[in-house]
Amino acid sequence: MFYMDKYIFVLLRHGQSQWNLENRFTGWTDVPLTKKGEEEAVKAGEKMLESGLKFDLVYTNMLKRAIKTTWLALEQMDLMWLPIIKTWRLNERHYGALQGLNKSEMAAKYGENQVYLWRRSFDIVPPQVEITDLNYPGNDVRYQNLSVNELPKGESLKLTIDRVLSYWIEEIAPKIKEGKKILISASGNSLRALVKIIDKSISNESITEFNIPTGIPLIYELDENLEAASHRFLASDEELEAAINEIKNQGKK
Amino acid sequence: MFYMDKYIFVLLRHGQSQWNLENRFTGWTDVPLTKKGEEEAVKAGEKMLESGLKFDLVYTNMLKRAIKTTWLALEQMDLMWLPIIKTWRLNERHYGALQGLNKSEMAAKYGENQVYLWRRSFDIVPPQVEITDLNYPGNDVRYQNLSVNELPKGESLKLTIDRVLSYWIEEIAPKIKEGKKILISASGNSLRALVKIIDKSISNESITEFNIPTGIPLIYELDENLEAASHRFLASDEELEAAINEIKNQGKK
Repeated sequence: MFYMDKYIFVLLRHGQSQWNLENRFTGWTDVPLTKKGEEEAVKAGEKMLESGLKFDLVYTNMLKRAIKTTWLALEQMDLMWLPIIKTWRLNERHYGALQGLNKSEMAAKYGENQVYLWRRSFDIVPPQVEITDLNYPGNDVRYQNLSVNELPKGESLKLTIDRVLSYWIEEIAPKIKEGKKILISASGNSLRALVKIIDKSISNESITEFNIPTGIPLIYELDENLEAASHRFLASDEELEAAINEIKNQGKK
Repeated sequence: MFYMDKYIFVLLRHGQSQWNLENRFTGWTDVPLTKKGEEEAVKAGEKMLESGLKFDLVYTNMLKRAIKTTWLALEQMDLMWLPIIKTWRLNERHYGALQGLNKSEMAAKYGENQVYLWRRSFDIVPPQVEITDLNYPGNDVRYQNLSVNELPKGESLKLTIDRVLSYWIEEIAPKIKEGKKILISASGNSLRALVKIIDKSISNESITEFNIPTGIPLIYELDENLEAASHRFLASDEELEAAINEIKNQGKK
């Protein structure tokens, strides 16, 4: 593969977590991968190895489901020695007071439409957590260095994009410009945020419908302005369709 | 536990690797842990968790046996989100042209005494690798940013201490002074180097005999000058004795 004057930038969404399986809003809650999720990560690593992808640097978030995915994929690629930077900026969207609740129960209680809005609207903020709540990140040692303004109490996709964007500008984009080949191994909505940032053709409405399947590497070619020139999933059409259908079926009663 | 005016600093040596098992000189060769080595790492994590140890920052080296040990131990401690800095400065001693050779065969060929000297002398340098040799780190992508002067062709313990010392001064010591609680998860001789650096009472001769057992955390208290005030292994006397005897039996015919 040879891409003239273009940068390669790869996104990987972690595989099934315990709460995906239980159909509960997860957000910043630090739940582990299921066995299936671990297998997805291993498979993603195998695919990237076979395709000849190389990296210089990996970013992931502060959540064990993304970190474990990173570790398993890099182990398959024999790239365990790569630097891995963990940042809360790439955490999943914070689902506020919805974290821990079962999506189907929520759908029965509030209606599928309200749940769909919370999950898929661009700027509707979920019910906020109190600062005394265990779901408030200020009560978690790993976020102790964040300012009160940085600590989310519940985010819309728009708010998630805002905090990913500042990290993109300060940290990731300069590294790509230096020529570093980067893998981002993170969660559904932080990856959606990155897609919205690099692909100016995607509207606020359509980004909410842009589904990145779990465990299937998404390869972007970026132009000299770091805008998306093209993208492709590292999977067969059948694998891709099956994975997308699985995501769509969440949030039904 | 409460240590007045002291810093806690923990060393962890990776468990059994495939070449430990095969009794071969390993050095910078990137061999994986055995199942037993993985179990040792998990156990080390359990011990640290039970003892209430907390960390802010972890350093490891560029070799998968130390990285995997780090990952498995942190997973047990539910500290996967900690920053992990990987550096060649904490790699095992480079064994030069001896890398890959079987210790017992070497003992039969050169005599136990010569093998013992190569393994346990303070400043005797092993036979050097050629720069065309696969064992020369300049031929490995992960060391491509090192200068020719930094790239080892074969190190004595003294040379290993020299390169660990500069990293200690530039990177680790300032972080400890900032109050960061640090775990170093690395290899036998880079850990020996750290012990020599923080414990001025250990002579050049006796450091070569200082055996850190695999998978047993070694906890140092450092005084305000970052010198060792005390140390203890996180293991029972029986566990410790069994582990030390195992190391001593390597290198016999």
